[in-house]
Amino acid sequence: MGSVLNIVKIGGNVIDDESELQRFLEKFAALPGKKILVHGGGKIATRLAAEIGIEAKMVEGRRITDEPMLDVVTMVYAGLTNKKIVAALQKHGCDALGLSGADANSIKAVKRPVKDIDYGFVGDILVDSVNKLGVKKFLEAGFTPIFSAITHNGLGQLLNTNADTIASALAVSLSDLYETSLVYCFEKNGVLRDVNDDNSVIQSITEKDFDSLKSEGVIYEGMVPKLQNAFHAIGKGVKNVYIGNAANLHLFQQGGFGTCLVSK
Amino acid sequence: MGSVLNIVKIGGNVIDDESELQRFLEKFAALPGKKILVHGGGKIATRLAAEIGIEAKMVEGRRITDEPMLDVVTMVYAGLTNKKIVAALQKHGCDALGLSGADANSIKAVKRPVKDIDYGFVGDILVDSVNKLGVKKFLEAGFTPIFSAITHNGLGQLLNTNADTIASALAVSLSDLYETSLVYCFEKNGVLRDVNDDNSVIQSITEKDFDSLKSEGVIYEGMVPKLQNAFHAIGKGVKNVYIGNAANLHLFQQGGFGTCLVSK
Repeated sequence: MGSVLNIVKIGGNVIDDESELQRFLEKFAALPGKKILVHGGGKIATRLAAEIGIEAKMVEGRRITDEPMLDVVTMVYAGLTNKKIVAALQKHGCDALGLSGADANSIKAVKRPVKDIDYGFVGDILVDSVNKLGVKKFLEAGFTPIFSAITHNGLGQLLNTNADTIASALAVSLSDLYETSLVYCFEKNGVLRDVNDDNSVIQSITEKDFDSLKSEGVIYEGMVPKLQNAFHAIGKGVKNVYIGNAANLHLFQQGGFGTCLVSK
Repeated sequence: MGSVLNIVKIGGNVIDDESELQRFLEKFAALPGKKILVHGGGKIATRLAAEIGIEAKMVEGRRITDEPMLDVVTMVYAGLTNKKIVAALQKHGCDALGLSGADANSIKAVKRPVKDIDYGFVGDILVDSVNKLGVKKFLEAGFTPIFSAITHNGLGQLLNTNADTIASALAVSLSDLYETSLVYCFEKNGVLRDVNDDNSVIQSITEKDFDSLKSEGVIYEGMVPKLQNAFHAIGKGVKNVYIGNAANLHLFQQGGFGTCLVSK
């Protein structure tokens, strides 16, 4: 087993707030050791699409990515957002390298099969989607990969792919090579015992705790699939999964960051 | 001196023609050995800017890059165009890695000083702008860097930079490490003896020939600065500069591609 690797996922809400984003990036740059950032999209893509007359198509809360929308998300995620993040990290001394899944063939996905719904150019990640040896080359050369949520199918087609899933797939795959932790940054301080009390963060949750917390109703709704995915990643070799507030990332090294999910 | 490196620059006119572009990329992918592609922007940025109500500002034929326009060119050049090219090259078995100058701090520029005209967020390249050891890491790891015409200043600011200049700066800098040739692809078959005869390509021009051809009036107008820049690059260590038709790139290895500029 090689050295430690931290994979941090940052969501759209931080990306949409310029000063939040800058504060977060300064903290991410200061994180020692090997690391990867995966970023979501934010509202810029939706706004740009509206401005150029592309209607955002949603089915059952899922965005449909037709060809004009794929162009928009490629522009915004892999272009504007990714390069702004890379330039900001370089300023803070982090040798950032912006990537889509097409670059260095780092993440190959398959266009989601059409069943009831045609999601359009949406990529699903498979078990061997991540080119871990390619990503390893960048890490070993001292670069910090910054992934946007765009992948490709290896046949010339770009695909829009969920950023949480990319982060998780990278973590599972790279845990063969590194002692890998996955850090989900969101707008809460962690998994809360009392949803109305931001200071009621549960510091550590095992899979067994998770079952109890679900039956107690402490963990519910959107948090359930998030944690299910996290424990799935742990089951596949990821050491720990953290869930916490982007604004607290500086506490990560001191063990004071959010909720830590552990296998047992 | 290391191995051979070819740096190919492709212009906007090819980028704007989807089938031309695909044909060119197939040929570029087939080019053996170490190589780099630098691509210009094309008309998509201008069209997108118009669609979202950003007026293209030109002063003396030069585009002024204000902040909204910088966002547009970053989206289009470093996002849409760059990632489409990378995905297409991956399809053809070329391990392409899309880069802006901010990525891996590969090309640092300075915001053009305001004299009579404020060009806005336009980057000028200096003698030590290229991080040649960073770019070398990618080449030695087997990747083919694909540069969009976006750089950064190292202080968090992205900058719009001329693609011809980027190609030339890369070639000059990397000629310290590789036997480097620079290949400008454009819409003509090369430097023509008779502008109306596409088959009148001058196969080889020395700097002395260039002076004669200028005084004879064979080379004039826009071609003069192009060739001046090319001979400048040769004076700085670049082995050869080629100027020819993107559609003929497959002839490059056989010595049948366009006009070759040589030092003597």
